[in-house]
Amino acid sequence: MNQDYIRPNEWSIIEDGFDKENVKASESLFSIGNGAMGQRANFEEHYSGPTFQGSYIAGVYYPDKTRVGWWKNGYPEYFAKVLNAPNWIGINVLLNGEPLDLNTCKKVANFRRELNMREGWYQRSFKAVTSGDETIDVKVTRFLSLDLDEVGAIKFEISPIDNDLEITFNPYLDSGITNEDSNWDDKFWNTTNVVSEGNQAFIEAHTMKTHFATCTFMEAQLYHEGEKIDLEPSEVKKELWVGHEYVQEVKKGESASLVKFGGYTVSTNHKPNELVQASKRVLKKATDLGFEALLEMQRKAWFKIWEMSDITISGDIKAQQGIRFNIFHLNQTYLGTDSRLNIGPKGFTGEKYGGSTYWDTEAYCIPFYMATKDQKVARNLLQYRYNHLEKAIENAQKLGFSDGAALYPMVTMNGEECHNEWEITFEEIHRNGAIAFAIYNYFRFTGDYSYIPEMGLEVLIGIARFWHQRANFSEQKQKYVILGVTGPNEYENNVSNNWYTNYIAKWCINYTLEQLQKVKEGYPEDYDRIVGFTKLTDTETDEWAEVAKKMYFPYSEKHGIYLQQDGFLDKELITVAELPKSQRPINQKWSWDRILRSPYIKQADTLQGFYLFEDQFTLEELEKHFDFYEPFTVHESSLSPCVHSIQAAKLNRMEQAYQFYLRTSRLDLDDYNKEVEEGLHITSMAGTWMSIVEGFGGMRIVDDKLSFTPRIPKQWEGYSFKINFRHRILKVTITKKEVKFVLEGKEDMSLRVSGERLVISPNTETIFENQLA
Amino acid sequence: MNQDYIRPNEWSIIEDGFDKENVKASESLFSIGNGAMGQRANFEEHYSGPTFQGSYIAGVYYPDKTRVGWWKNGYPEYFAKVLNAPNWIGINVLLNGEPLDLNTCKKVANFRRELNMREGWYQRSFKAVTSGDETIDVKVTRFLSLDLDEVGAIKFEISPIDNDLEITFNPYLDSGITNEDSNWDDKFWNTTNVVSEGNQAFIEAHTMKTHFATCTFMEAQLYHEGEKIDLEPSEVKKELWVGHEYVQEVKKGESASLVKFGGYTVSTNHKPNELVQASKRVLKKATDLGFEALLEMQRKAWFKIWEMSDITISGDIKAQQGIRFNIFHLNQTYLGTDSRLNIGPKGFTGEKYGGSTYWDTEAYCIPFYMATKDQKVARNLLQYRYNHLEKAIENAQKLGFSDGAALYPMVTMNGEECHNEWEITFEEIHRNGAIAFAIYNYFRFTGDYSYIPEMGLEVLIGIARFWHQRANFSEQKQKYVILGVTGPNEYENNVSNNWYTNYIAKWCINYTLEQLQKVKEGYPEDYDRIVGFTKLTDTETDEWAEVAKKMYFPYSEKHGIYLQQDGFLDKELITVAELPKSQRPINQKWSWDRILRSPYIKQADTLQGFYLFEDQFTLEELEKHFDFYEPFTVHESSLSPCVHSIQAAKLNRMEQAYQFYLRTSRLDLDDYNKEVEEGLHITSMAGTWMSIVEGFGGMRIVDDKLSFTPRIPKQWEGYSFKINFRHRILKVTITKKEVKFVLEGKEDMSLRVSGERLVISPNTETIFENQLA
Repeated sequence: MNQDYIRPNEWSIIEDGFDKENVKASESLFSIGNGAMGQRANFEEHYSGPTFQGSYIAGVYYPDKTRVGWWKNGYPEYFAKVLNAPNWIGINVLLNGEPLDLNTCKKVANFRRELNMREGWYQRSFKAVTSGDETIDVKVTRFLSLDLDEVGAIKFEISPIDNDLEITFNPYLDSGITNEDSNWDDKFWNTTNVVSEGNQAFIEAHTMKTHFATCTFMEAQLYHEGEKIDLEPSEVKKELWVGHEYVQEVKKGESASLVKFGGYTVSTNHKPNELVQASKRVLKKATDLGFEALLEMQRKAWFKIWEMSDITISGDIKAQQGIRFNIFHLNQTYLGTDSRLNIGPKGFTGEKYGGSTYWDTEAYCIPFYMATKDQKVARNLLQYRYNHLEKAIENAQKLGFSDGAALYPMVTMNGEECHNEWEITFEEIHRNGAIAFAIYNYFRFTGDYSYIPEMGLEVLIGIARFWHQRANFSEQKQKYVILGVTGPNEYENNVSNNWYTNYIAKWCINYTLEQLQKVKEGYPEDYDRIVGFTKLTDTETDEWAEVAKKMYFPYSEKHGIYLQQDGFLDKELITVAELPKSQRPINQKWSWDRILRSPYIKQADTLQGFYLFEDQFTLEELEKHFDFYEPFTVHESSLSPCVHSIQAAKLNRMEQAYQFYLRTSRLDLDDYNKEVEEGLHITSMAGTWMSIVEGFGGMRIVDDKLSFTPRIPKQWEGYSFKINFRHRILKVTITKKEVKFVLEGKEDMSLRVSGERLVISPNTETIFENQLA
Repeated sequence: MNQDYIRPNEWSIIEDGFDKENVKASESLFSIGNGAMGQRANFEEHYSGPTFQGSYIAGVYYPDKTRVGWWKNGYPEYFAKVLNAPNWIGINVLLNGEPLDLNTCKKVANFRRELNMREGWYQRSFKAVTSGDETIDVKVTRFLSLDLDEVGAIKFEISPIDNDLEITFNPYLDSGITNEDSNWDDKFWNTTNVVSEGNQAFIEAHTMKTHFATCTFMEAQLYHEGEKIDLEPSEVKKELWVGHEYVQEVKKGESASLVKFGGYTVSTNHKPNELVQASKRVLKKATDLGFEALLEMQRKAWFKIWEMSDITISGDIKAQQGIRFNIFHLNQTYLGTDSRLNIGPKGFTGEKYGGSTYWDTEAYCIPFYMATKDQKVARNLLQYRYNHLEKAIENAQKLGFSDGAALYPMVTMNGEECHNEWEITFEEIHRNGAIAFAIYNYFRFTGDYSYIPEMGLEVLIGIARFWHQRANFSEQKQKYVILGVTGPNEYENNVSNNWYTNYIAKWCINYTLEQLQKVKEGYPEDYDRIVGFTKLTDTETDEWAEVAKKMYFPYSEKHGIYLQQDGFLDKELITVAELPKSQRPINQKWSWDRILRSPYIKQADTLQGFYLFEDQFTLEELEKHFDFYEPFTVHESSLSPCVHSIQAAKLNRMEQAYQFYLRTSRLDLDDYNKEVEEGLHITSMAGTWMSIVEGFGGMRIVDDKLSFTPRIPKQWEGYSFKINFRHRILKVTITKKEVKFVLEGKEDMSLRVSGERLVISPNTETIFENQLA
């Protein structure tokens, strides 16, 4: 564990004490978002110490020119950069004309941050002796409204302790921002209008190239001893900056506060030339309500989210804090209401990776959203890919595929590929499989078949075509092989016959063939439309079937396991346990060639296949593969521990499952990978949810019904979660002694617990004695 | 063949007629150099059409910041950029005040370029009707002196045809130059001093970061009707530019000319603060001699070079032109007098690739220089690597190797690695083998063993240590394997057990062990010094021997061939002949992943090993491997056809050998790869020499003696070459009927011809009937 300054607490993330070394990490951990926008927990007032400034607007990106050392054919010309957006949270503070700056204060006491996850707000308070020797108490509360998702609110309160003070609040907007990851001093925003009107201000700016038009806005109100002071502020305008000055004489013991409302209106939701008007409308709504009423609405909105998605853990406060932190950030990042959006790997907490959509969405996030929201949220996520099918076909064409073969991008904002390492972009093709799997998984969980004839089948056809063309027949093996790929384990590049890739390729083809048959029988009109549109012939599907039938899988007779790829056993098989600690993490200590020729696995690869397709393997097979591969796994991907936690739980290795759980749930809180400053690992947070529900709870869908195999780590007294299964809400509570089900609604539900069939009635507790597996 | 505008001629490269489309290609083809500096054949006067401006100074480079999409541990922070140097060749011309610009002339007639290779000068002449409707004859002659290698000379002659004219010559120096390959508007030169003194001018500029100080200088003289005009020119100075104006009234039919001397003095050869003085000294020498005398010296100097290195071919003018073009550019690039310099892949003809030293030097260039120059030139090239041994050890350390293991860089200027693709930089490790092989080859050819105890053995130890550490024991195979490499065929990345790499690794270890024994016995003091310094133990060398003994080589029983690497036979084995022409060159038509999983070979890989180690394989084995691999070879590396030409000749497939010969010798003249605009392929030109001497001539060293197996393409009447073998000069002339030897010196020499022993006496023709193999 690398940091421990965050206080354990059931519902809040709390930092006590001011340490400049922690500022960037806390800026990540205390980030807030509301699905439409978000920002790092930067201080409102000027801070001269090291900081990573970041505000982000969902869906607003910049196609930056791809720069590589040596160009390869097929590289995308542009990659999507997550853009730092104009700053609306800034409030500079002067005390008798001297700026407040925590970096230069003589003393900072009682410094405390709290991210209240239950209610959805962030607060920072401290007592400071300023560089001008004034002592003040400060409390700043900030939230981004879930109800009015274009607006956020800040209340900045100051009390002089020893002397009367002239306090100047200087709220401002600033579009002169840059990206942290920009090496080339590039500007991405073009500011077209800077306006100040009374206590409101507006900056209109659009992104270059993509021409997203935005209006960043603010309105402030001054309070003295809780009384609103009606005051026309003085204004300061610069080229990319507009600020107001509110000056108030405050006696010692009294308090002054500034309430600032701010946010963005964007051309994706309004006409570009009506953004200022739209901003005024949302400001009016917010100010009419006022800070306290808006905060009360925020509490209620979060209460509603938690009511469905909360997981409780008793007897282990750190585990409880961890899972809520994960659920909270997932909901801050994506709420599922807009099918144009997706779930960026850093959410609104940083810039790294660029682009918003990875295979993480399909492989990790969909199960969480499917079970904790209405199923239309998952359908929106599927439809996002359907909308990008044409671009996926173009992407495959760029790499030499033809006739409607589709290769979904590794990273994207708008369907175009925007990643530029050949070994990932061109070779990590298993992502196509996850997108097909999500279609299967959606139907398995929701029972909503309609998606497949409407949209999903076309996606499946494009993907099956890709696998058909991508495999080639090996005369030597008399089998189809898939050469030159990167599997989920990105610590191998350009390998042949990656078992996971070959397996999911075969599965995709077979699943597509089955769905073709099913749609033909059940939805003949859709079938005709799709076959006509895609020009699919029996010859082609026969060829697909042949590829699937004769797919090659590397296997070791000696070990009785499938090999991660050809040649794996030629490696020097030294386990991670035997590796000196000084050599880890290997991605920071070793050169790339050394990593590649080592046996070390970044994240589940063969075991990822065993996770997705567990029905097709015995428990003994799982055990053999787990025992072979896990000892070589360094878990240097945030997506690794969750899958291993689930598999360990299935093998009833609860201590190991628990350790993996802690690692996934507190990855960022405890900064396992020493990189939390750069932002949080949002998509892997959904894996944490899976670790509990699918891992410890053993939830599966079997024959259209829920099934549980409950287990519990010895460190826990009990835990509970809720599942929205086909519009039925089921709460499951598991202790060491019993499993308790409470079903909402009116009808009975049949399910399985540890293999036994059970029928439960609604609105009553059904208790099942827990015979831990 | 892609272009045919170059006129066939035995001794000259000639372009007739002005085609703007050819300007950049001709700028490459007509480049001149003198080992110390060089430049593309840019026009002296302003040209507003598309052009690629380039002047280069040997050894002067800039360590540019490495920019990649995703950083990998082990990447060098900087890469060496070949820098465009300040321009000294510029002479703008005004005719009655109107600028001469070939791009805007109303008519250009009799345009002709000639690169006279026999005499070492470049001339351009034309008749133009200018935009101002004046008709003039122009002739410009330029050369870079071999005798005074800091200076070049230009004579720019103009004759008005129809009207009297006021001609203004405006010679200038310009340090406001940029690099063609710079995407980021970076400046690499810092200009510190711009001076004009009478008819001389000087610009002092140093490179940023590396601080090479340079003085670019010029002096001009005006002539009217061949009479020197004493005239103080008027001067124009700008920030990075200084020019003079010489104005002359010229009647129609008369001529005026400007002679300009210019060049560079550099801090590598002078004290940095004495560069202007040094420039004045070299200018005095040049002007004292005058243009004609200096040109006469140039003729003599080139005559001396040709006397030893010329290859004549009768009956095939294009083949003759091709080989002389190759020999000429090799000598323009590197003359072997300075062990700090090496042979850049583009010489002084372009910027591409950066850095000056590749494995090309050891694998391709050393045989040429060894046989056509004094052997100290080859020794200088070996010593270059000895001087970089410490950096090679550091380079290996960065990649995780220890205890004195050395990995020579893929590309370098100063011994540091300066290439940044992981698959090349980290994995194309066979380069280490070529460096060891060159040590063996030097001794084999020259018989000078002294290099090994003095320097070579330390290099060999570092290399053997690398191979020992880089191989690992495969439990499965019970053999040592080398995983994750890129072989000479760069169309495969991160493959395992590349046969060539494994073979040369084994060879390096065995050769080092032999040399250790030999030095121990013959040079005990050197042995003790080296063993003490390197801390070499018997345990370590025993381990080396074990690795060599148990090295794994992939082999196909079915085909009876060594496999290029593990898994080669899983590919879709469609030959190049079956590939549609529209798909080629694949490096321009295909995405990288498609190239990687194809069977297509960029350049000799397994066959490269058969070339270097031919003694260890039978002719039948060579034939089998040639017949298997050549059909998959696309020869998209300039280094490919020469090796194939040699192998085809050995197999007595003379038509194929001849076709490969044309392709290597006229690669740039005929622009096979559609890229001559970027510069010439200098290092592969040495391969052309090998194609004739080792391929057709069948020259080898067997038991310390020269051996020949002469063959001749049916298109040729005869050919001849000279070999400097252990300070003895032997001229070999081969016709369809006979082989003729003429030996210089005083002693007899024994040699073999087509397997038969022969003793030849000096200074007489020894004729051997040619029984073509």
